[in-house]
Amino acid sequence: MAVGLQEFPSIPEIKGVNIGYAEASIKKANKKDVVVFELCEGAAVAGVFTQNAFCAAPVRLCQKHLATTDARYLLINTGNANAGTGKSGMENALLTCNALAQSVGVPVEAVLPFSTGVIGEPLPADKIVAAIPAALSSLTGDNWRAAGVGIMTTDTLPKGSVRHFEFDGRSYTVAGISKGAGMIRPNMATMLGYVFSDIAMDKGVLQAILKEVVNKSFNRITVDSDTSTNDSCVAVATGGAGNELVTDIGSPLAQAFIVAFTQVMQELAHAIVRDGEGATKFVTVEVKGAKLESDATKVAFEVAHSPLVKTALFASDPNWGRILAVVGRAGVAELDVDKVQLHINSFEIARDGCRSPGYLEEHGQEAMAPAEIHIQIDLGAGEASDTVWTTDFSHEYVTINADYRT
Amino acid sequence: MAVGLQEFPSIPEIKGVNIGYAEASIKKANKKDVVVFELCEGAAVAGVFTQNAFCAAPVRLCQKHLATTDARYLLINTGNANAGTGKSGMENALLTCNALAQSVGVPVEAVLPFSTGVIGEPLPADKIVAAIPAALSSLTGDNWRAAGVGIMTTDTLPKGSVRHFEFDGRSYTVAGISKGAGMIRPNMATMLGYVFSDIAMDKGVLQAILKEVVNKSFNRITVDSDTSTNDSCVAVATGGAGNELVTDIGSPLAQAFIVAFTQVMQELAHAIVRDGEGATKFVTVEVKGAKLESDATKVAFEVAHSPLVKTALFASDPNWGRILAVVGRAGVAELDVDKVQLHINSFEIARDGCRSPGYLEEHGQEAMAPAEIHIQIDLGAGEASDTVWTTDFSHEYVTINADYRT
Repeated sequence: MAVGLQEFPSIPEIKGVNIGYAEASIKKANKKDVVVFELCEGAAVAGVFTQNAFCAAPVRLCQKHLATTDARYLLINTGNANAGTGKSGMENALLTCNALAQSVGVPVEAVLPFSTGVIGEPLPADKIVAAIPAALSSLTGDNWRAAGVGIMTTDTLPKGSVRHFEFDGRSYTVAGISKGAGMIRPNMATMLGYVFSDIAMDKGVLQAILKEVVNKSFNRITVDSDTSTNDSCVAVATGGAGNELVTDIGSPLAQAFIVAFTQVMQELAHAIVRDGEGATKFVTVEVKGAKLESDATKVAFEVAHSPLVKTALFASDPNWGRILAVVGRAGVAELDVDKVQLHINSFEIARDGCRSPGYLEEHGQEAMAPAEIHIQIDLGAGEASDTVWTTDFSHEYVTINADYRT
Repeated sequence: MAVGLQEFPSIPEIKGVNIGYAEASIKKANKKDVVVFELCEGAAVAGVFTQNAFCAAPVRLCQKHLATTDARYLLINTGNANAGTGKSGMENALLTCNALAQSVGVPVEAVLPFSTGVIGEPLPADKIVAAIPAALSSLTGDNWRAAGVGIMTTDTLPKGSVRHFEFDGRSYTVAGISKGAGMIRPNMATMLGYVFSDIAMDKGVLQAILKEVVNKSFNRITVDSDTSTNDSCVAVATGGAGNELVTDIGSPLAQAFIVAFTQVMQELAHAIVRDGEGATKFVTVEVKGAKLESDATKVAFEVAHSPLVKTALFASDPNWGRILAVVGRAGVAELDVDKVQLHINSFEIARDGCRSPGYLEEHGQEAMAPAEIHIQIDLGAGEASDTVWTTDFSHEYVTINADYRT
C-alpha cells in the first residue's frame, strides 16, 4: 500500500553501464535476487555507507575495495544481509567477489559486494556464485526495471528515478534505483541506492557531491528509526557523455549536475518512504525558525519517530498535542514554548505554544485527512531549518515485522 | 492484556494520609476521575517532574507551590492533561487549587495540582471544582484502591505497591500508587506516581532519596519512547511512625527506608510497563560490560525503543540480528563488535559479535516464547551496566493510539 509512488520510470541506456540479473533463490524460490552492474573502464565510483558499528561484511569489503582501485562491477543480493556473521561473513563476501572477478578477468578489488535481508544468518555464497554466469549473460543497457525489482525485499514496488539536463550543447542523464521499506533511518547512506550518470567527473568531486546530497535526501528519511547494518549508496559517473572531466565542484557544469543529481536522490529517497512498511501517509516534517540547524534536524526526527504521532497520523486523528509534546522533549536548549507555531497542511493549528484562537476540530480533521501530510513547526527562535520525510505507523507495519522471517 | 501484573495489594492506613475521590466526568461519563490526598500538618513532601519543555500548567504550578510551602493536599484529575494550553491553562489549574484551598481553609500554595489525559484541550475546571466537595466528604485512610482506579487513563488495572520494614523496634510502611500505559519514557519522573510513608524525615533528605531512586525505577522504563508533558512523582513522609526525624541520608534508618522505598518505586514502575499499551511481554534489557554507565543506558534504551525489536518480541520471533543492529547504531564510542555477547533468557544467542557456535533456531524460539523476556547484552568493554524495562509492540498498541480520542 505504497503512498503516491509513481510507476517505475522509463530509463534510457547510460553509456558505460550494463545491467544483469539472475535467480539465486537465496531466501525464497523463483526470485531474481542477484543483480550485477557492469561499469566501463575509467568510470568514477563514489560510495557512502552505514555508520552502524555492526556494519555488514559486504559494507566493510566495499569500503576496502573502493579505496584500492576503480570499481568495474557491483554485485548485489537480497534475502540475506551477511551482517552479524563475523569472520565467515567476510570470507563469504570475498568468495562471491572472487567468483565474479575470475569470470570476467578483473582484479577482485574491482568488484563491490552489496547484501540486504535477514541479519545474523550465514550468507549462502554458493547460491550466489552459481547465479553469476546467468547474471553476466543477461548484461544489457536497458535492464533498469529488472534491477529495481531484483533488489527489492519488503518493498512493494521497484523504485527508479531519472533526470536529463543540457549543458553547453551537450545532453546528460542521471538515473538510479533504490530499495528499502523497513529498518529505514539511514545515517550517511541509504538502504541501497545506486545512481549513475554519463557525465565525466573526477572521483573526488563525485564523492564530495554524493556526501553533500545524501544529507538532503537519504539521510533525511526515516520509516522506523532503525539504522540498517547494510545501508549503501553508490554514485557512478561513466564519462559516456564525452564532456571534459569535471574536476571543480564549483564549476557551472558541476552545479547543473548537482541540481539533477539532488532531484534523483530525493525522488529515490522519497520512494522508500512512500513504500515504507505499512505506510498509508507520506509525511513531510519541516522545522523552521530554529536557532541552530541541528535543533531543526533533531526536532524533525523526533517528531518523525514518535510512535504516538505516527499512530495519530495513521488514524487521521488531529491529536496535535502529541506533536507539541515531542517538540518539548526533543532537547532543544532554551526552547521558548510560548513562541512555537504549528501548521498541518494549510491549517494553522497552534500559535504561541497553544491552540490557535480560531481552531476548530473540523480544521484538524480536514488537515489530517489527505495521504500527503505537511507538518510545519516554527520554533520562533532563529533562521535555521531542516526537513525530514517519514510515514505513519499502521497495523500493517506490525504485521510485516512480526512475520518478517516466516 | 497486562503482563503478569499483580492484583492491587492490600495497603493499610498510613498515619497522616487520607484519600478521597469523586466523579467529575471530565472525558467520560460515570468515571471517578478526581482524587484528593490529604496530608497531615508537618508531612515532608518531595517531588520530581517531567523534563519536557512543553510541561503542563499543573506541573509548573506544583513546582512553584512545592518551593513555597509544605503541601497539605494533592488534587489529581484524569481525562485532560492541561498541557499545551498556554496562559488559560495556568489560570484553570490555579482555579481548581483555590477552590480546594478555600473549602478546607489552607493557603492555595498548600495544594499541589496534577492532570493527565488529552494534550491541548482546555481543562474543564468547573467540572473539577464541582467534584471537590464530594471528594472531600469521602476522605478516609483506606481508599487506596479507589485512588489507584481514579488516576487511570488507558491503564487496564490500578497499580499499587506496599512494603513494611522494622527498625530499632519500630514498624514502618511505604506504599504508593502509579498510573500510565502510553507516552511512557519518563525523564526525571513518571507519568503519575505517589509514594507515602509514615517515617519522619527531613524534606531535603526525602527529596535527595526520591531523585536517586527515580533513576533506578521510573526513569528506567519505556513503553513507546514518548516523554509525557505531565510526568510527576511525589514522595510523602508523614512522620506518623513516631521516629526521631531522619536528617542524614547516610543513617542506618535512611538506608533501611531506601531499600523499601526502592522496592515500592520499582514495583510501581514495572506495573506501568506490565500494563503498557498493547503489551504482551514484559522485557528486561540489561546491558553490562560497558566502559561507561552512559553507554549501557544508551544501548538499553535504544534496544527498548526499536520498533523492529519490539515487533519481533510481539511475534516471539528470535530475529536477534535486529538487536545486534541496534547495538551497532546506538552510538557507543569505539565499540568492538567482535566482543559483543547476547543472551535471551537463559540461552546464549551471540558470542564474539556473531551467532553462537551451538545456536539452533529452536533455542531462539524457546528463548523468545515466554511473556517475561530478559535480554542481556555484554559489550565486553568494561564494568559499567544499566537496566531498562519495556514492552513489545503489538497491533493493540496501534489500535489504542489510533483511537485514543474517540
